[in-house]
Amino acid sequence: MSSAKLDSCLNEWRSAIGDTFVRTEPAILERAETATYKTAQRIPAVLSPATRSEVQQCLHIANKYGVPVYPISSGKNWGYGSRVPPGDGSALIDLGRLDKIVEFSEELGYVTVEPGVTQKQLYSFLRQKGSRLWMDATGSSPQCSLIGNTMERGFGHTPMGDHFAHVCGLEVVLPDGTVVETGAARLPGSLTASVNRWGVGPSIDGLFSQSNLGIVTRMTIWLMPEPDAFEAFFFRCPDHASLPELIDVIRDLRLREILRSSIHIGNDYKVLAGLQPYPWNKTDGKTPLGPELMAKFRSKLGFGSWNASGGLYGTKAQVNEAKGILRKTFAKQSGTLKFLSPKTLRLAKKFAHPFRMLTGWDLNKTVELVEPVLGLMQGVPTEQPLKSAYWRKRFEAPAEMDPDRDRCGLLWYAPVAPALGHSVEALTDLTSNILLRFGFEPMISLTFLTARLISCVVSISYDRDVPGEDETAAACHDELVRACSERGYYPYRLGIKSMNQITEREEYADLLGRLKTALDPQGILAPGRYDPRGSAVSDPILERS
Amino acid sequence: MSSAKLDSCLNEWRSAIGDTFVRTEPAILERAETATYKTAQRIPAVLSPATRSEVQQCLHIANKYGVPVYPISSGKNWGYGSRVPPGDGSALIDLGRLDKIVEFSEELGYVTVEPGVTQKQLYSFLRQKGSRLWMDATGSSPQCSLIGNTMERGFGHTPMGDHFAHVCGLEVVLPDGTVVETGAARLPGSLTASVNRWGVGPSIDGLFSQSNLGIVTRMTIWLMPEPDAFEAFFFRCPDHASLPELIDVIRDLRLREILRSSIHIGNDYKVLAGLQPYPWNKTDGKTPLGPELMAKFRSKLGFGSWNASGGLYGTKAQVNEAKGILRKTFAKQSGTLKFLSPKTLRLAKKFAHPFRMLTGWDLNKTVELVEPVLGLMQGVPTEQPLKSAYWRKRFEAPAEMDPDRDRCGLLWYAPVAPALGHSVEALTDLTSNILLRFGFEPMISLTFLTARLISCVVSISYDRDVPGEDETAAACHDELVRACSERGYYPYRLGIKSMNQITEREEYADLLGRLKTALDPQGILAPGRYDPRGSAVSDPILERS
Repeated sequence: MSSAKLDSCLNEWRSAIGDTFVRTEPAILERAETATYKTAQRIPAVLSPATRSEVQQCLHIANKYGVPVYPISSGKNWGYGSRVPPGDGSALIDLGRLDKIVEFSEELGYVTVEPGVTQKQLYSFLRQKGSRLWMDATGSSPQCSLIGNTMERGFGHTPMGDHFAHVCGLEVVLPDGTVVETGAARLPGSLTASVNRWGVGPSIDGLFSQSNLGIVTRMTIWLMPEPDAFEAFFFRCPDHASLPELIDVIRDLRLREILRSSIHIGNDYKVLAGLQPYPWNKTDGKTPLGPELMAKFRSKLGFGSWNASGGLYGTKAQVNEAKGILRKTFAKQSGTLKFLSPKTLRLAKKFAHPFRMLTGWDLNKTVELVEPVLGLMQGVPTEQPLKSAYWRKRFEAPAEMDPDRDRCGLLWYAPVAPALGHSVEALTDLTSNILLRFGFEPMISLTFLTARLISCVVSISYDRDVPGEDETAAACHDELVRACSERGYYPYRLGIKSMNQITEREEYADLLGRLKTALDPQGILAPGRYDPRGSAVSDPILERS
Repeated sequence: MSSAKLDSCLNEWRSAIGDTFVRTEPAILERAETATYKTAQRIPAVLSPATRSEVQQCLHIANKYGVPVYPISSGKNWGYGSRVPPGDGSALIDLGRLDKIVEFSEELGYVTVEPGVTQKQLYSFLRQKGSRLWMDATGSSPQCSLIGNTMERGFGHTPMGDHFAHVCGLEVVLPDGTVVETGAARLPGSLTASVNRWGVGPSIDGLFSQSNLGIVTRMTIWLMPEPDAFEAFFFRCPDHASLPELIDVIRDLRLREILRSSIHIGNDYKVLAGLQPYPWNKTDGKTPLGPELMAKFRSKLGFGSWNASGGLYGTKAQVNEAKGILRKTFAKQSGTLKFLSPKTLRLAKKFAHPFRMLTGWDLNKTVELVEPVLGLMQGVPTEQPLKSAYWRKRFEAPAEMDPDRDRCGLLWYAPVAPALGHSVEALTDLTSNILLRFGFEPMISLTFLTARLISCVVSISYDRDVPGEDETAAACHDELVRACSERGYYPYRLGIKSMNQITEREEYADLLGRLKTALDPQGILAPGRYDPRGSAVSDPILERS
C-alpha cells in the first residue's frame, strides 16, 4: 500500500468521524499491536466511530482506498490475540463508543445492546432497574463486550451459558457498508424481532459469528429470571484417574437435565493459578511446577486433581431434589461433594472455624476462588480469573490489570471433545504432556458447553519478560494445534495465531471463499479472521516513521 | 425452455440414475402437481436418486441444461404446498430413496439420518434397539421426513420441540453439485461432528433451512433420554377472554423452566376438528359452524374455548413439584386443570365410569384426541392430527389418508407473536374474524416454540370438491397474509403460496440475492423457494402431450 493512498484514506476517515477519533500516534498503535504473546502485525490507525452510520462511512472509505479494517468491540480477546488482527496492515475499528443499551424487556427477558456494552455495564443496568433477571457472565473481564464475546461463541456459567444459542436480531454492517437486520428483524414492523431466533427464510446469524463477513452493531441477548432458589455444588476428585468416570456421570446428569447449566471442571494447576501466583520460593525459582509439588499444594489447600462445580437453579424443592440426586450419584465416585449457597458462604466467611468443624471443608483456603465462581453462576461478572494471567510474573497482579501492558504471557488453545470420559481423558493427557514437555504448567479447564460437548481450555501461561519464553510458548502452541488436530480434537474458537493452522476440506474452504467474495469483493474486512486465505496482506505496510 | 433441451436433459438424467427413476408419465406428474389447494405449477419429471452421488449428478446435469430442480424429502408438506414447487417448470428430486439411519449413539443421544428417513422409521429403530432415548415427533404424518421437517423449522412436543435448535453436522449438496459438511464435520477426522453445533469459523447451517441454497442429504438429530417420570397437564379455559392471562402464566412457567417443553394451546374449533368431521347434520348442511353451535359442542364434549396441554418430564419428585406449582398457578385462573399419566389413561379407558366419578373428567369423549397427544409428548408419531384435513369432506377419513389425492382443502398460515397475552389475543382475534368472514371455521393452535415466542397456526380447512371453495380459500389466505403482515405478525414458515407475498427490506433481499448468486449462479435449485425473486420461471414449460 502506498503511503499516499493510506494518507488520503486517513484524511477521509478524519473528515468522516473527527480528527480525535482517528489515532495514529506510535504509542497508541504500539499498544494496540501488543497481545499476550508475540505478534508481528502492524496497525496503521485506530478508528473510534460513535455510531452505526460512522461505522458505515469507515467501511465505504476503506473500500474506496482498499485499506483493510479490523473491528474490535472491547478488544479483551486475551490469550487469543487481544486487539491484534490476524492480518498485517489492518486499521482497527474500535466499537467501544457504541455503548448503548437500546431496549430492555423485563416481561420477555431480553436486552438489546451495542458492541461497546460490557458485562459490567449490563450487570449495573439490571441492578439499577431492580430487575429480577440474571445475565450470563463469562469468566473474562467485567470490561469485556457482550457482543464481542458472543460473536466469538464464548460461554458462561448459568443455564444460558452457550451465549450464541441465546441471542437474536443482529444488526450487521456488511463489508460494503450496507446494513441488514437478521431473523424476524429483517421484516418491516415485525413484533418478534427480539424473541424470534430464526425469523423466516434462511437464518444467517451464524455467518457473522467467528467470521469476517460483517460487523455486528446490535444484538438482543436473552436473560433468565432469577430462580427462587440457587445453590452450587463442588466436587473434587482426589486423583487424575477419576476423570473419565466424572465426565460420564456429569454427562448423564446434564442429558437428564438434573444439571441445566454449563458445568466447569478445573485441574489442580488451574485451581492453584486461580488462588496464588507461581510459588517461586518453593521451587528455587525453577519452572515448571512438577506433579510432586502440585500434590503437596492439593493436600495443603484442599483441592482435588479435578474440581467440578456447577449451579443448581429452580424452586427450593427442585434444588433439593437435584442435591439428593447428586449426593446419590457422587457417593459412587471417589471424591468429595459439597454444596454451597450464597447464604452459607456468608456464614462460612464469618464463622470459618465452626464451618470447618461442621462440614470438614476448610473454605478459607479457597474462598478467594469459590466466591467469584459462585457469583459467576449467578451472572455476576468478576475480575478474579484474570489474575491467573499474572501467574509467572515476578510482581503481584495490579489493581488495574492489563495483561497486554504488563507483558503477561498467555496463549489459550481450546480443543473440544465429545462428552465421553475416555475421549476427554485422552485429550487432557495429550495436552498436559505437551505443556510439561515445553516447560509450562498444564492449566486445564473443561466445560460442558452442552450435555454432549466439552471444551478443554488449555492455558500456556508465562512471563514475556523472560528471554526466549515467547518463542517456547509459540512452539508449544503450535505443537498443541498439530497434535490435537491430528487426533480429531479441533477448537471451539481460534486465536489469531491458529487461524491459518487448521486445515479444512477444500470444498468447504471454497464455499467460504465464495461467501466472502459475495459480501466483501475487495477483502477489506478483517482479512485472515477465521479465514486462512486472507491472513497475509500482499503489500507490506509502510515502516512507521 | 425448448422441448429438445428438456428431452436431452431427461435422457442424461436417465443414464445417470436409471430409466425407472426418471418418471414423466402424466398420471405421476399430475399427482405430484396436486396439493391441498389450487396450484398452477407444472412439473416436467420426478427424479428419484438413490445416493448422494446420484443427487450430485442430477444437479450437474440440471446445470448443464439449465433445467430447474426442486428437492423434496417425503413431500408431506401438507397445507404449505405438498410436493409442489413454488416456481413453474422444476423437476422434482424425490429424496425418499436416501433412507438410511447412518449412525446412532445411545451414550451421547443422537442419530444421523438421510432425508428419506421418516418419523415412523426412527421411532421403530429406537424401539428395536431397545433404546432408552426418545425422539421428538411432530403432529404431522408418521411418514414425514425428519430432515424435511427440520429444514422447514418444524416443531414437536417435547423439550426438544424446536427441531432446528437440536441438529448439527449437515451434509449438503450445493447447487453446483459440490458436497460440504457443516459444523465440526467440516474438519477432517473431527471427533465432534455429531455433537458440536457450531464447529469453528462461521456457522452456516442456518443457510440451508427454509432456503434454496443446498440439498441436505444428511443430518444429526439429538435425542433425549427417557425421563424417570412423565405426566401431562391439560388446562381448559371456559371463555375466550381468558387467553391473555393463560399466555402470560405459561410464559412465566416456561421462562422459569417449570415447564420445559413446547406447550400447545388449541381453540375449540381445533379440538372439535380433531375429534370428528364437520357436523353436517347439526348445521343443515350449512357452513361455517358458528360460535353459538360451537358453544354447545364445548359443553357436550367437555372442552374449553382454549385448551392447553404440555408434558412434565423428570424424576418423580420433579414432576410432582411441577404439578404442585401448576395447581397453585392455575388455581388463580378460571378454568379446569387435569393431569394424566400414561398409566392413568390406561385405567381411565378401562374404567371410564369410575374415572369420571372420581375426577369429574369424562375422558371418553375426548380420548381419541388425548391419547395421541400424550403419545406425541413422549415422541410417539401419530396419524391422528391428519384426520382433521378431512373436516369438511362428505366421507370419513380413509385408513390410508392422502389429503392431496382426496381433494382435502387445507391451507395453513402460521404467524408468530411475542409471548405476551395481549399480543397473542390480538392475533387470534384478527385471524378468527378473517376466517369466519370468508366462511371457514377458525381452527387455531398456539405453540410456545420457546418461552418467548408463540406460533399461531391457522388452518383454512375446506372441501376442494365444492365449486368456488379453492378460490375463496385462496382469497382468505391472502387476506391473512396482508392483515397479519400489516400488524407485524409474520410467519415462522411459509407455504409456496406466500413465498412471494412477504415484503422484506431491500438490503436484506439484496444480501440473499448475493448469497444465492454465489452458490447457484444459474438459479437452478428450487427457484422461488423462500426467495420472491425466483418464483416465476421466464420460459413457460411446454404443454404436456
